[in-house]
Amino acid sequence: MSESSVFLSGHVVVLSGGVGGARMARGLARALGNPARLTVAVNTADDFVHLGFAVSPDLDTVLYTLAGIENPVEGWGRADETWSFMATLDRLGGETWFQLGDKDLALHVFRTQALAQGRTLSAVTAELCRRFDISVEILPMTDDRVTTVVETEEGPLAFQDYFVRRRCQPKIKGFRFIGSDDARPSARLIERLKDTALGAVVLGPSNPFVSIAPILAVPGVRAALEACPAPIVAVSPLVGGAAVKGPAAKMIAELGQTPSVGWVAEHYAGLIDGIVVDEADRAAAGAIRGPRVRVAKTVMRSDADRATLAAEVLGFALEIGS
Amino acid sequence: MSESSVFLSGHVVVLSGGVGGARMARGLARALGNPARLTVAVNTADDFVHLGFAVSPDLDTVLYTLAGIENPVEGWGRADETWSFMATLDRLGGETWFQLGDKDLALHVFRTQALAQGRTLSAVTAELCRRFDISVEILPMTDDRVTTVVETEEGPLAFQDYFVRRRCQPKIKGFRFIGSDDARPSARLIERLKDTALGAVVLGPSNPFVSIAPILAVPGVRAALEACPAPIVAVSPLVGGAAVKGPAAKMIAELGQTPSVGWVAEHYAGLIDGIVVDEADRAAAGAIRGPRVRVAKTVMRSDADRATLAAEVLGFALEIGS
Repeated sequence: MSESSVFLSGHVVVLSGGVGGARMARGLARALGNPARLTVAVNTADDFVHLGFAVSPDLDTVLYTLAGIENPVEGWGRADETWSFMATLDRLGGETWFQLGDKDLALHVFRTQALAQGRTLSAVTAELCRRFDISVEILPMTDDRVTTVVETEEGPLAFQDYFVRRRCQPKIKGFRFIGSDDARPSARLIERLKDTALGAVVLGPSNPFVSIAPILAVPGVRAALEACPAPIVAVSPLVGGAAVKGPAAKMIAELGQTPSVGWVAEHYAGLIDGIVVDEADRAAAGAIRGPRVRVAKTVMRSDADRATLAAEVLGFALEIGS
Repeated sequence: MSESSVFLSGHVVVLSGGVGGARMARGLARALGNPARLTVAVNTADDFVHLGFAVSPDLDTVLYTLAGIENPVEGWGRADETWSFMATLDRLGGETWFQLGDKDLALHVFRTQALAQGRTLSAVTAELCRRFDISVEILPMTDDRVTTVVETEEGPLAFQDYFVRRRCQPKIKGFRFIGSDDARPSARLIERLKDTALGAVVLGPSNPFVSIAPILAVPGVRAALEACPAPIVAVSPLVGGAAVKGPAAKMIAELGQTPSVGWVAEHYAGLIDGIVVDEADRAAAGAIRGPRVRVAKTVMRSDADRATLAAEVLGFALEIGS
């Protein structure tokens, strides 16, 4: 399907964690023609304070990806980064397990300062969008503190401890989102989801447990999605039973289940109207009951891949909605 | 006088602000042969929190200079510095009037973290010395907060506001050292000054008002100097009526006095036993009453200059003490 064949009207909201959702958002912004028609609601339950800085890994990946300055190889950080700070901190005996580039650091310092002055994460994010010339609306899921704890066989671990320091090695038993009961959702997100002119909601190909689930756990978000008349389409983060990036498949297996597109469809049952699965899963897709299924090339290696997938997703939503 | 002709025994303490005192300390460390025989007591009244970081401008200049990694052109910062952080922060609209290089930033982050964990500035400084392979003992004048306020015709200004942001332009009326009444001096410094094996105390060629005065204002320091049997020698920060670096001469003039080596000798009257003045001030030196006077080449452009001046200073102290 060529990009020009999509005529979905209205605003689009995409739920995103880090790299997969960010790339999906970039494709959607391009496929929609006008990036201002896109809102990205971003998981903030991985946010943590490191070396005194307020670090928001998923927000940063989304910001950098939409600004076109993301590191194209890693799932985090900036392109053309320099590492003088980290190398010197290492020499001084400081903590270096979580890598912060010199340019990346400026964003963390800027945000930490703004938060210390009493500004909300939403307000800082909006300002960063202006500074990076991003027309897409980027919304932290909440301005309150929600913190993912990974329950493992070695005990509970903070998410970055699990993900970066321990490289996802400890076997997981479950997840908790501390603070989510009392968190208030992004008011702008709820407004977007209630808008009758909403064209579609996309669950990006992000980790269902630690990227999408925390967003859905913020009181009001799931209810707003369930009440929303626009079609909700998930893009499977699993391709051929494996995650494109990250520990999703490993987590599903460690919870005693089988990682597959069928699992994803089941996991989101009752919430989504459609699911987009990769060509590699054409056979498995036949067994999916419930949501409508679209087969497409979901692995996004280039901007063209992202826009093509986005056009497929939007076209699929258009079909579902009509 | 060649370096090898100095046989001053005992430990040497030098009082220091930023660049002038730091270079003097470097020369003394070399002239003493064994750098562990030198203690540098450093002004911390310029310390401030910037962008959330605990910045200690004079301590940093002393650390970098003794580590041999100082910027040889500016009076602050490191050689071979990179500026990715600052350039990015500028792009984001952050504060850039106080320049922090990428490598320099690592030191501030390391120190800020350590202080937040409850360690003292003295302990962090000692650890930084170990990390930078510095055998000289570097002591913050106090672990308590003392803050220089510059009283100007435009009202009171925090020191870095006056010095960096306003480039010393507002006319001064005086100085206050907030917190100095309650500050406890470095216990190690007092111990060094009371040690009967102390060989000499040197007042580095640092600003008398904003570098040396805050050290002397910490309760106990002046008394320990006055009681100390070792010779106390000042190196004039003024050469030909002008400061080698910084606003000392401008400050003296704005206070209605005449910047000269005579002024320096008068200013430290009752405290010092000798003063080292530059060859350019040979004529003016004749009018100095009170301390003994030594004429030397005091402008330090190279490491050899520093060691030569240091040997002169130590030789002069040896003469005074004998």
